[in-house]
Amino acid sequence: MSEPIPTVERRAHPRTTSDRWQTAITSIQPNAILVRGYAIDEMMGRLSFADAVYLLLMGELPTPAIGRMLNAVLISTIDHGVTPPSTLAARTVATSGAPLKDSVAAGVLAFGPHHGGDVESCMRFLQLGLGLVRDGRSLPAAADQLVDDCVRGGQTPPGFGHRWHTRDPRAARLFQLALELDLDGEHVQMIRAVEVGLAARQPEIGPIPVNVDGAIAAICADLGFAGELGNAIFLISRLPGLIAHAHEERTREKAMRQIDVSRHQYDGAHERRIPESRR
Amino acid sequence: MSEPIPTVERRAHPRTTSDRWQTAITSIQPNAILVRGYAIDEMMGRLSFADAVYLLLMGELPTPAIGRMLNAVLISTIDHGVTPPSTLAARTVATSGAPLKDSVAAGVLAFGPHHGGDVESCMRFLQLGLGLVRDGRSLPAAADQLVDDCVRGGQTPPGFGHRWHTRDPRAARLFQLALELDLDGEHVQMIRAVEVGLAARQPEIGPIPVNVDGAIAAICADLGFAGELGNAIFLISRLPGLIAHAHEERTREKAMRQIDVSRHQYDGAHERRIPESRR
Amino acid sequence: MSEPIPTVERRAHPRTTSDRWQTAITSIQPNAILVRGYAIDEMMGRLSFADAVYLLLMGELPTPAIGRMLNAVLISTIDHGVTPPSTLAARTVATSGAPLKDSVAAGVLAFGPHHGGDVESCMRFLQLGLGLVRDGRSLPAAADQLVDDCVRGGQTPPGFGHRWHTRDPRAARLFQLALELDLDGEHVQMIRAVEVGLAARQPEIGPIPVNVDGAIAAICADLGFAGELGNAIFLISRLPGLIAHAHEERTREKAMRQIDVSRHQYDGAHERRIPESRR
Amino acid sequence: MSEPIPTVERRAHPRTTSDRWQTAITSIQPNAILVRGYAIDEMMGRLSFADAVYLLLMGELPTPAIGRMLNAVLISTIDHGVTPPSTLAARTVATSGAPLKDSVAAGVLAFGPHHGGDVESCMRFLQLGLGLVRDGRSLPAAADQLVDDCVRGGQTPPGFGHRWHTRDPRAARLFQLALELDLDGEHVQMIRAVEVGLAARQPEIGPIPVNVDGAIAAICADLGFAGELGNAIFLISRLPGLIAHAHEERTREKAMRQIDVSRHQYDGAHERRIPESRR
Repeated sequence: MSEPIPTVERRAHPRTTSDRWQTAITSIQPNAILVRGYAIDEMMGRLSFADAVYLLLMGELPTPAIGRMLNAVLISTIDHGVTPPSTLAARTVATSGAPLKDSVAAGVLAFGPHHGGDVESCMRFLQLGLGLVRDGRSLPAAADQLVDDCVRGGQTPPGFGHRWHTRDPRAARLFQLALELDLDGEHVQMIRAVEVGLAARQPEIGPIPVNVDGAIAAICADLGFAGELGNAIFLISRLPGLIAHAHEERTREKAMRQIDVSRHQYDGAHERRIPESRR
Repeated sequence: MSEPIPTVERRAHPRTTSDRWQTAITSIQPNAILVRGYAIDEMMGRLSFADAVYLLLMGELPTPAIGRMLNAVLISTIDHGVTPPSTLAARTVATSGAPLKDSVAAGVLAFGPHHGGDVESCMRFLQLGLGLVRDGRSLPAAADQLVDDCVRGGQTPPGFGHRWHTRDPRAARLFQLALELDLDGEHVQMIRAVEVGLAARQPEIGPIPVNVDGAIAAICADLGFAGELGNAIFLISRLPGLIAHAHEERTREKAMRQIDVSRHQYDGAHERRIPESRR
Repeated sequence: MSEPIPTVERRAHPRTTSDRWQTAITSIQPNAILVRGYAIDEMMGRLSFADAVYLLLMGELPTPAIGRMLNAVLISTIDHGVTPPSTLAARTVATSGAPLKDSVAAGVLAFGPHHGGDVESCMRFLQLGLGLVRDGRSLPAAADQLVDDCVRGGQTPPGFGHRWHTRDPRAARLFQLALELDLDGEHVQMIRAVEVGLAARQPEIGPIPVNVDGAIAAICADLGFAGELGNAIFLISRLPGLIAHAHEERTREKAMRQIDVSRHQYDGAHERRIPESRR
Repeated sequence: MSEPIPTVERRAHPRTTSDRWQTAITSIQPNAILVRGYAIDEMMGRLSFADAVYLLLMGELPTPAIGRMLNAVLISTIDHGVTPPSTLAARTVATSGAPLKDSVAAGVLAFGPHHGGDVESCMRFLQLGLGLVRDGRSLPAAADQLVDDCVRGGQTPPGFGHRWHTRDPRAARLFQLALELDLDGEHVQMIRAVEVGLAARQPEIGPIPVNVDGAIAAICADLGFAGELGNAIFLISRLPGLIAHAHEERTREKAMRQIDVSRHQYDGAHERRIPESRR
């Protein structure tokens, strides 16, 4: 609730706390829908969908810079081809002839701890590091401590490493935008310090670049998102990808096929550039 | 596929058509992700998320007008309070302590034919009317025919009527934007003609206003979306609402409660206006 | 409430039909649970689980013969290895580290029209044939009509054909048991007549044996199950299979692997016989 | 795997470990299906479904006593009326017109930590107590220690307490059967000792009886089930209940209704006894 309703006003009404439950998201009256206090028809045409997502989850309109950042974050993981478990689960359900929404639900279920769920654990990891800073450690010393703990335990830190990419272009672009938009707060600084710490250990452990989950985690944490809402941002972002793949499966492949991931081939549009006019 | 890969080039390679399957959505190479041919890191910061959704589902970048329209469409059904079955399914799963994504998946499953699934059936309904026009009927005559068939069968046409609203502010705003952006094609014209036809019958059947599903159906059909992708647009739109409610349930209510919808109360932000600077 | 309030008594009270809704399944009182009128603790130790499933879905205790039949039906599709879409969806979700129940839910979603959903459509198909019989056709003539319609339309009748088996051992055993237990009613007779009709066309269309879905459909229809409950029997039957595969994936394989179905190998128990003492 | 394939025999074949993955559940050959080594058509008519569930999950046939126990366990939680979150999630999805399997999947998703998931945590809790016994504590002393820790932490032990029942008739009957069938092992003894320990504290904390989840946990642990398979037994048991409620909702109620749990009424069969002949 962004503007607390004055207590006095509420007490004037009979006390109903015992048998009423409260929601602060959307108010529905006949012919009037207010999302976090804003008329939905006033939002339409004035805000981007990403702005509205921020409003819904955080309770306030984003600044233009935050809105632009969130649009980029939501695009960054909109799709990653046919190999993620969520995409394969969605396609597998589609082969049975089930409706599109069933494919989507199955895909959502595959956002387990090892896939998508990494955003939240990376947010916790970075907060651990910032706790060390608050206890007096310098940023590089705190980052080194985190790296040491992971290396000693034989663990890859959450938000680092990728099955396909040695330098994740999405993470790089997100950090660049955060810098441009003046939104690189302490979590972004912490993850970059951890990246430096890991690079220093590279001869020992090989390259473990920061990945897009890590970049999203750092940025969402700096924007003040709760951990499980960091995961939710990934989920909102990837939903169109699940839909595109389920739809392609339903319209392009025959039913009940066995999907052998290692035998797929891209036959879509050649590489092309966004027209100058769109920049 | 927007630019077909030349056949000759493919024949140069050993023929693999029999044991390869094709995808035209996203190409993944080490450190390079192309969505429908565009580098994802180039899209970030230049496109809105709604633009990227259009690209992913339709294969091409939207015009700026279409991008603005799609942002408004996605906002129009971003949330509708606690009463829809999808929201209640999501909240009910949340009371069991299940993770947020499980609530979301259950909510998605509640987008059945009577809820959300209406977009696709309204698209088919409008195409029926446009078939009559192509067979020589005038627009009003075709619309009257559709209305007659529904009234005689005791059916409400898909995309019309609402449990709460006698004039759906979201539908009105979507039509206004479609007009402003010069995107009101034959499906929008058909649904408005059906609305007129229904209003003429009002003494007989009562007011049955066009609803937001109908407006989305007409606009998506004019933009060229396939029927099941019309439903998918609703799904992308409502996902943040499901997340906001599941998160509120998990953080604000105690576990295993029985959710009595008739006893909820809105205690969120008072009505407020979007600042002039955001318009 | 286990004893329905007499109608007269209800009229004496203010009419409450509008604001009460009814359920006839299970009555819950403190320390007393009645399923369709039977105390659950009295059922335990006296009935088989299959008996209780019948009671729950049909409202009455099965005869011993029906109980034995249903045990066999539920065993018949308890698992079919790693290749069905439902099993692959469950395993794919498991690779993400999601909890077992999420794998199960994704598997259930893959019981689409082409997989599991066939039971209901086969029940409808057989009722079509029995309608012809009621209209005066002989059983073989009605079956030939059904076969003719399918062959002319290039369709395989629902409940016939299998990707793996040319003679489905489960269907054969179910029909044998139905005969032994004197439970082979008109739907079983119709499906066997269709089987004969298809065999007569074999030179033309190749062998299309009745499959386990067809056998379950015929038997469930003879037992009086509604169509969607025929599908539900398949679902109850296969659930343990989904669980076994999700558990094997979680305990035996590493996370985030890509499951290539064509590369699996069975390394379980050798073929063995049920001890004589268990017969 | 019950009979390990000799290593030597495997080495005789070309090494395929790197590109083959293994499954030990079901072997599929044309016209031959072996579940854990047993021909499925031989199982049908000879085993109960509960026996087959045990075989599938544990790899071996159960003894007749274990088979009888498992039938009772599966019946014990087959349904609990309309109030559990899983039932409400299934019914809520059904109101949208979604197919039955979608209701079932949503119901399964509501088996969160507070509902159904309790079996696994109770199994861990009992193993904690048995660890104390192995360290030299007597059974009552170990149970008292568990109770002390819970009471001090203000926690109800997993497997104890119920929203409706002060003496859970299902738990009582399960323990009775375990005793009769000589299947009451150390986990059953531990949970009964904890029950005694809690009763001794009753003046202080009120009555907290062992519930059906606790009884299932103790019995499944004594039978050797892994923790997550204990939860899975609950899931298999409750599936028919989810189906019965989704089917009742779809056939008896109108679509898109709002389900107010506090306004339901039981109008099913009167209380009745299982005929003597079925005992």
